[in-house]
Amino acid sequence: MTETVRIVEVGPRDGLQNETAPLPVEARVELIRRLAGTGLECIEAGSFVSPKKVPQMADTGAVLKALMPDKTRRFPVLVPNLRGLEDALAAGAQEIAVFLAASDAFSQHNINCDMAESLKRTEPVMREAEAAGVKVRGYLSCVLGCPYQGEVPASAVRRMAGALHEMGCYEVSLGDTIGVGTPGKAKAMFEAVAAEVPMAQLAAHFHDTCGQALANLYAVWQSGIRVMDASVGGLGGCPYAPGASGNVATEDVLYMLDGLGVAPPVDLKKLVETSWWICKRLGREPRSHVAAAKPPADLRRLERGISAD
Amino acid sequence: MTETVRIVEVGPRDGLQNETAPLPVEARVELIRRLAGTGLECIEAGSFVSPKKVPQMADTGAVLKALMPDKTRRFPVLVPNLRGLEDALAAGAQEIAVFLAASDAFSQHNINCDMAESLKRTEPVMREAEAAGVKVRGYLSCVLGCPYQGEVPASAVRRMAGALHEMGCYEVSLGDTIGVGTPGKAKAMFEAVAAEVPMAQLAAHFHDTCGQALANLYAVWQSGIRVMDASVGGLGGCPYAPGASGNVATEDVLYMLDGLGVAPPVDLKKLVETSWWICKRLGREPRSHVAAAKPPADLRRLERGISAD
Repeated sequence: MTETVRIVEVGPRDGLQNETAPLPVEARVELIRRLAGTGLECIEAGSFVSPKKVPQMADTGAVLKALMPDKTRRFPVLVPNLRGLEDALAAGAQEIAVFLAASDAFSQHNINCDMAESLKRTEPVMREAEAAGVKVRGYLSCVLGCPYQGEVPASAVRRMAGALHEMGCYEVSLGDTIGVGTPGKAKAMFEAVAAEVPMAQLAAHFHDTCGQALANLYAVWQSGIRVMDASVGGLGGCPYAPGASGNVATEDVLYMLDGLGVAPPVDLKKLVETSWWICKRLGREPRSHVAAAKPPADLRRLERGISAD
Repeated sequence: MTETVRIVEVGPRDGLQNETAPLPVEARVELIRRLAGTGLECIEAGSFVSPKKVPQMADTGAVLKALMPDKTRRFPVLVPNLRGLEDALAAGAQEIAVFLAASDAFSQHNINCDMAESLKRTEPVMREAEAAGVKVRGYLSCVLGCPYQGEVPASAVRRMAGALHEMGCYEVSLGDTIGVGTPGKAKAMFEAVAAEVPMAQLAAHFHDTCGQALANLYAVWQSGIRVMDASVGGLGGCPYAPGASGNVATEDVLYMLDGLGVAPPVDLKKLVETSWWICKRLGREPRSHVAAAKPPADLRRLERGISAD
């Protein structure tokens, strides 16, 4: 049980894409550099989706290019299709992520096709990525519930995760997109999927909408999960419930992992500072309990820094 | 694992005593009646401490008298000493709670004596309560950390909990007063104490300062804990960290227990309504994820109700 847990920081992508105000490229680069400075080794840098649909992720190519000199970190980016992949490769992406759902209803709503079709569309992306020597992570959303169809059977999650694994995703991140899961159900779902995909190739992605994210992470950690997605300051909100939490906050996950003796080498104090910095930039407070409990002593200094940029 | 968990609602006491603005007796009675209306069967009604020190709990006797006609619920009250017990008995209390700490430093700060002396002072209260046929619950604070001395050894918790059990407390509630515990440490501490006091006579009382409360509750539930303290809307704040969470929110605990299939028969919708009602009264939003995600449809109606009273 003492193996270190890896954190995949998704704030600059899954977080910012759900914040109303788009941030300019420089601010996104600065956020990612600050996150890298805490010791986080894998930070999602953005998404090559339509800037009309998701203006918050516009110019991810420029973000990626600014980060490229840092070879000590991984900066995966989301791609929705071949066109996105080409843009990502042109910007120098070393790693990409594809995103599918474990619900036909959500899939239709999000990417205009059912689950079977979403797998078909993913195949050429996987082939091209492999040809370019680029690693691919798979995201599967709605694994514990869907805002359109309600219940999602574990069999659907298992089937879709298995297909992504089979296609060559080095890791499949299972997302409780609407944050409705509870620890017993989360554990049972992960264990069902592990019959198809080894636990070591699964990651846990919980949203904190109902406050259950850390309890769920603890539960699936007990089942062997060693990779957790999290978002600094709980960036992200929840598009289905204004005012409600989005991604689980990286600070709170790190605090728990530290207590369990399995934290990665990330500087919590710097992370809390980064959380306050970006949240100040977004005009709100961190949705992290640890950050709220421990505002950095130099917050005033940070504030001055922000008003000056 | 399917035994129903009991919730002890501490919002009207542990919650309100840490909110800055004292509420009048009628509002506190109204809150407790609304909580009783959700199905909660044990609701702390207040505290017989000095109204100079804790003005929020002044006139708890009047609160208790107003509630007395309801014989279907339990309304325990905190008493600090014999004088408090006499006042509680005069008001018709059927159940009281005593409060001690697992840290000499906190005990000195809170009740002006060390742990050994606090046990001595509790003895006559226990005797008088027994003579009056009144049940006594024991609270032990700082079980996972102390704001003054830092680390708290599990041996101190075990010794103090054992002494309270021995003295006749029917249940000992172990409180992570400053909310610093994580699930592995919480579980280990409860299991250490269970060597002295049966798990069935222990309760878990977590504050959510670092966001760990639900994960901790899940962990100790796995170890056999079947009684959990919680506060509607996360009432309480944390006196050591302005802006930080206090008690874990009852709504979030109930949601988790429901997912685990072990929830008591409490109406979550009514509870969320009550949470919004009292938080509106206090001029803030609920510190409950579930309440924030699901604001009651009739909030406007409630708002009108509030402005009219």
